[in-house]
Amino acid sequence: MGLILHHRYFCPHSRFVRLVLAERGLEAELVEERPWERRTDFLRINPEGTTPVLELVDGVAVPGPDGVAGWLDDTDSLPPGRRLMPEAIGHRIEVRRLMRWFHGKFFEEVSGPLVEEKIDKRFIPAEYGGGAPNTTALRAARANIRYHLAYVGWLAARNDWLAGPSMSYADLAAAAHLSVVDYLGEVPWNDDAAARDWYARVKSRPSFRTLLNDRVVGMQPSASYADLDF
Amino acid sequence: MGLILHHRYFCPHSRFVRLVLAERGLEAELVEERPWERRTDFLRINPEGTTPVLELVDGVAVPGPDGVAGWLDDTDSLPPGRRLMPEAIGHRIEVRRLMRWFHGKFFEEVSGPLVEEKIDKRFIPAEYGGGAPNTTALRAARANIRYHLAYVGWLAARNDWLAGPSMSYADLAAAAHLSVVDYLGEVPWNDDAAARDWYARVKSRPSFRTLLNDRVVGMQPSASYADLDF
Repeated sequence: MGLILHHRYFCPHSRFVRLVLAERGLEAELVEERPWERRTDFLRINPEGTTPVLELVDGVAVPGPDGVAGWLDDTDSLPPGRRLMPEAIGHRIEVRRLMRWFHGKFFEEVSGPLVEEKIDKRFIPAEYGGGAPNTTALRAARANIRYHLAYVGWLAARNDWLAGPSMSYADLAAAAHLSVVDYLGEVPWNDDAAARDWYARVKSRPSFRTLLNDRVVGMQPSASYADLDF
Repeated sequence: MGLILHHRYFCPHSRFVRLVLAERGLEAELVEERPWERRTDFLRINPEGTTPVLELVDGVAVPGPDGVAGWLDDTDSLPPGRRLMPEAIGHRIEVRRLMRWFHGKFFEEVSGPLVEEKIDKRFIPAEYGGGAPNTTALRAARANIRYHLAYVGWLAARNDWLAGPSMSYADLAAAAHLSVVDYLGEVPWNDDAAARDWYARVKSRPSFRTLLNDRVVGMQPSASYADLDF
């Protein structure tokens, strides 16, 4: 059996893993999960009940974006200078800090509420919390994206890539979260040219192609979503 | 300058870092933060604004329990077989999974709400969200601790230590979170002998001693807190 990725198409943590696998040339069978259904076979491989989970072989599963990145570092055959986790100690500290930032803070303040309110609630049955979006949560996320985008622009202007001189997990984490917000038309790209230029570079990588084909049933992506020259 | 740990005494993520440093024989000057004050010098070294942050040298700071563990692994001089991150791939996957579990899920469901409602709200000014505890949040955390304790017991009965045959970051993460809940008298130790026996082993390590002297002003610890034969 090959790799199996239990994921959701618009879960930003799942998208990070898809990008990472594609960058490393690893293919995985995609299985879409609806965590709110608490499917027994899914909970058996990940009692936490969250996506993503990368199933390596029967009975061995790696949960979470941090888990998958760590496993890849343990098994990476690339020379250290070409890995998504860089070699220099200071650079590694910054990559880990920014993974925390995007998978934690950006998710809590921006991508998490936007995906939940605008996408997930359309598909989650009312008894599990589905229904109309909470406009207070949407308003807060729309205010938060502005300072986060400015921070991305500041990081991108300081170095070639967000955490240093080479592309790393930090760029893929930021891009994964921004990509779902972009689908929803909620990234004010005109606010920050440095952030937009950096995102255009990440977005034009072959690893990004499959994400740009994802669609939410009944909801068209924003005009910028699949446009490489947005 | 030596290491400086920006922390809070009853922040479980901070306690994890104190345990890890003590296990590795590293001393750090402790600086207590009140994150709700958003102190400028603290935000400068960690824009995320959360504890813990380990300041290595002026201008280089490592935020978060995962960041500190990663940095330690990068710089560890111990032979691989004696590190807190073990050597075997399967064991490493399990250590990362359980760090996610305790620093994420256990914190959200148990230690986070209990510390916030019972400790932090006593010290946070009303305009920043302080005040009387939310009894609904307390009730939920008290229900959640029961299944978490059973899970700890199941893990402890399966191996010598939570993630495998040697003590690892997973044990220190679990013990850090349980220790604050124990201070508050909210761990139903009699429910699970395997969990209690494992915790007694971690608690009797020299690295744990300093935590057992911590006190919340005006709030005595539970009878079990500092008792090694609880």
